[in-house]
Amino acid sequence: MSLYNQIAGQRIQRIEALSDGLFSIAMTILVFDLKDPVSSALTSEAELWAGLSGMLPKLLTYFMSFMTLGIFWAGHSTQFHYIRQSDRNLLWYSLFFLLFVSLVPFSTIVLSGHITNRVSIGVYWVNIFALGASLYLHWNYAAHHGLLDIPEAERKTVDRAVRKRIIVAQTLYAFGALLCLVNNYLSIAVILAIQLNYALGLFDGSKRRS
Amino acid sequence: MSLYNQIAGQRIQRIEALSDGLFSIAMTILVFDLKDPVSSALTSEAELWAGLSGMLPKLLTYFMSFMTLGIFWAGHSTQFHYIRQSDRNLLWYSLFFLLFVSLVPFSTIVLSGHITNRVSIGVYWVNIFALGASLYLHWNYAAHHGLLDIPEAERKTVDRAVRKRIIVAQTLYAFGALLCLVNNYLSIAVILAIQLNYALGLFDGSKRRS
Amino acid sequence: MSLYNQIAGQRIQRIEALSDGLFSIAMTILVFDLKDPVSSALTSEAELWAGLSGMLPKLLTYFMSFMTLGIFWAGHSTQFHYIRQSDRNLLWYSLFFLLFVSLVPFSTIVLSGHITNRVSIGVYWVNIFALGASLYLHWNYAAHHGLLDIPEAERKTVDRAVRKRIIVAQTLYAFGALLCLVNNYLSIAVILAIQLNYALGLFDGSKRRS
Amino acid sequence: MSLYNQIAGQRIQRIEALSDGLFSIAMTILVFDLKDPVSSALTSEAELWAGLSGMLPKLLTYFMSFMTLGIFWAGHSTQFHYIRQSDRNLLWYSLFFLLFVSLVPFSTIVLSGHITNRVSIGVYWVNIFALGASLYLHWNYAAHHGLLDIPEAERKTVDRAVRKRIIVAQTLYAFGALLCLVNNYLSIAVILAIQLNYALGLFDGSKRRS
Repeated sequence: MSLYNQIAGQRIQRIEALSDGLFSIAMTILVFDLKDPVSSALTSEAELWAGLSGMLPKLLTYFMSFMTLGIFWAGHSTQFHYIRQSDRNLLWYSLFFLLFVSLVPFSTIVLSGHITNRVSIGVYWVNIFALGASLYLHWNYAAHHGLLDIPEAERKTVDRAVRKRIIVAQTLYAFGALLCLVNNYLSIAVILAIQLNYALGLFDGSKRRS
Repeated sequence: MSLYNQIAGQRIQRIEALSDGLFSIAMTILVFDLKDPVSSALTSEAELWAGLSGMLPKLLTYFMSFMTLGIFWAGHSTQFHYIRQSDRNLLWYSLFFLLFVSLVPFSTIVLSGHITNRVSIGVYWVNIFALGASLYLHWNYAAHHGLLDIPEAERKTVDRAVRKRIIVAQTLYAFGALLCLVNNYLSIAVILAIQLNYALGLFDGSKRRS
Repeated sequence: MSLYNQIAGQRIQRIEALSDGLFSIAMTILVFDLKDPVSSALTSEAELWAGLSGMLPKLLTYFMSFMTLGIFWAGHSTQFHYIRQSDRNLLWYSLFFLLFVSLVPFSTIVLSGHITNRVSIGVYWVNIFALGASLYLHWNYAAHHGLLDIPEAERKTVDRAVRKRIIVAQTLYAFGALLCLVNNYLSIAVILAIQLNYALGLFDGSKRRS
Repeated sequence: MSLYNQIAGQRIQRIEALSDGLFSIAMTILVFDLKDPVSSALTSEAELWAGLSGMLPKLLTYFMSFMTLGIFWAGHSTQFHYIRQSDRNLLWYSLFFLLFVSLVPFSTIVLSGHITNRVSIGVYWVNIFALGASLYLHWNYAAHHGLLDIPEAERKTVDRAVRKRIIVAQTLYAFGALLCLVNNYLSIAVILAIQLNYALGLFDGSKRRS
C-alpha cells in the first residue's frame, strides 16, 4: 500500500467522531417528518387533537427509525470496541455504512408517506439490509486484516457472536419485511418487536446465566 | 447476559458524544421555526419591523425550548459525571431519553403554531415529562446496577440530590402546565420562570452556605 | 452552592463538545438559504447562469455569517484554552452564548431576504452584539471566580488581551452597522472587511515583533 | 504575532471536532435532496415504484457528493495526523476549507436539479476545485511554518505524497468535468470512477509492494 494510503484513516477516534456526528444528525432530522398537523393558528382544541391523532402512523415510523439507528449505532460502536487500528479500506467500509445511515431519514419519509404501500416496506427493508451487510463486511475486513485487538482466548467467541448477531437479526428483519405480503402494519409491528427485543434484551437466552 | 450484550455500550465516551451531538442539533434546528416574516424582498422598514414584532411568540417558545434542552443536557451530563461504566440497558435508557430530546423541536412548532390552544401546552408538557421520567429511570438503573462511582460517604447525598432535583422540577413543570386552564401565556411564563430559576440558581436555598 | 449545582457543568470537555456541535451545525445550515435558483429542470445554460448570478447577495451574506461564526468559535475556543474548571453558572453563560449562535442562521435569512432594508442590518447587528456581550460576560465570570488557569506572570496581559479584543471588535461592528444609514452594501462590506482583518490578521500591529 | 493570536486556535482537537461535526452534517443533509417522489398517500405500487425509479439521477448525485465529502474528510483528517500544533492562520485555512465543505449540499442540488445542464457541472467542479485548493494551501502553510511533526527521514516523502495526491486528483477531476462538453452523464461517471478508485485503491500502483 502506498504511503498516503497507509496513513489515511489510522486514527479511529476521528472515524468514531464522524460516526457519532452522523448518527446523531440522522436521528434528529427524523423529526422533520413530523410537521404541525394543522396549519391554521386559530384551531379549536378538538381540531388540533384530531390532527395530532392522525399523526400516529408517522410517530410509529419515527419510533421505528429511531430504533433502527440506535441499534446500528450500538452495533458499529461495539465493533470499534475491538478495533484498535484502522486502515484506509476499513475507513471506507465505515463510510459506506454511514452512507446507508444517512439514507434512513429518506426511507422513513417514503414509508410514512405510503404506509400501506408494499413498495415502501421494500425500500425500508433494502436500507436495513444494506446497513447490516456493510456492518458485516466492516467486521469481516477487520477480522481478516489483523485490525482487531481481542485476547486469543476470546477471539473465536467474540468473532462468532458479532457475526451471528447480524445474521440472525437480518433474517428476522427479512421475515418481518416479507409480512407486508399480508399487511404493512403487521410488517411494521413485527420489525418493531424484533427491535425492542434487541434493545430490551427480552428474550436473551443467556441472561439467566449472568 | 450474553457476551455481545456485555460489551455493547460499555464505552461511555461514545454515548456522551452521541448525546452532545443530538442535543446540539436539536438546539440548532429550533431555529427552523423562525422564518423570514415577510416573504417579499421589497418591503418597507415599517413592514419588516411589524413582521418581526409579530414573531415575538415564536421567539418566546424558541427561548423556552432552548432552556428546556439546556437544562436536560446539564442533567444528563451531570449523571454521567458519576457513571463510570455503562451496559447495554443503560445505553438504551440514554437512547430513549434522546428520543424525547429529538422530539422537542416538534413539540415546539406545535406550541408556537397554536400558542393559545391548551392541547399544545399538553403536548409540550408530555414531552418535558417524558424527558424527566426517562432521565430519572436512567439514574435509577445506574444506581441499582453498580454503574456509579461515588465515594461511599457521599453516595446517599448525591443519590438523593439527583432524584429530588428531577421530582421537584417535574412537580413545578406539571403545575406550570396546568395553569393553561387559566391562560396559555401564564403557563408559558411560569414554566420559563422555573427554568430561569434552575439556570440562574436564583432561589438556591443552600447557596448562602457556600 | 448546593451539591447538585456544584457538580453540574464541571466537565468542560462536554461543554466544548456541545459548542463544537452547535457551531458546526449553525455553519452548515446556513446553506439552506442557498436554494436552486431555477426550479425548472429544463433550463438553458444562460438561464441557469443568470439565476446563479442573481444569488450573489445571498452568497455574500452566507460568507459573512460563516465568518461571524468562525470568529466567535475561535473566541469561545480561545477562552476555554484558559478555563480549567467550570461551574453551573459558567455553563449557563456558555449556553446563552450558544443561544445567540443558533440564531445566526435566522438573522442571516432576514438580512439576505431584505438586503437593502436597514431593519435587517439592525437585526444582524443585535445578533453580533449579543454574541460579543455574552462572550465578554463568560470571560468576566470565569476571571472573577477563579476558574482560569493562567500563570501569574501572564494573567494580566491575557485578561486585558481577551477583553480588549471583544470591545474593539464590537466597536468596529457597531460602526459598520451604523453605515447602513448611508447604504446597506457599504455596511456589509465594512463588516466583512473587519472580519477578514481579524481572520487574516492583516493589520495586526504586533505581528512585526514575532 | 500578538498574544491573542498566538493562543487562538492552538488546540487542534477542537478544530478536528468542528471538522468532524461539519462533515457529518454536510453528509447527512444531502438527504434533503431526496424527497418523497409521490406526494399523494394513496398511490398504487406501480406509481410509487415509477416515482422512485425517476429518482435515480438524484441518487447518483447523492452518492457522488457523499464520496466527495468522504474523500476530502479523509484528506483533511490525514493532514492532521501530521499536524501537532496549530496557529490562528492554520485555523483559518481549515475554516475556509470547511466553508467549501458546507457548500457541497448546495452544489449538489444545483447539479441534481439540472443534471443535463453544463453550467451545473461547472458549479460542482468549482466546489471540488476550491476544496482541493484550500486543502493544498492548508498543508503548504503547515509545512512552511514548522507545524508538522514528521520524523526527518520521512519528511520529504510524506510532503511529496500529500501534495502529489491533491494535484493528481484535481487534474483528474478537471478532466472529468471537462467531459461535460461531450455529455454530462459521462462527466459524472468519470468523476465517480475517479472517486471510487481513490476510495477502493483499485489502481494503487504501489500496492504490490506492501
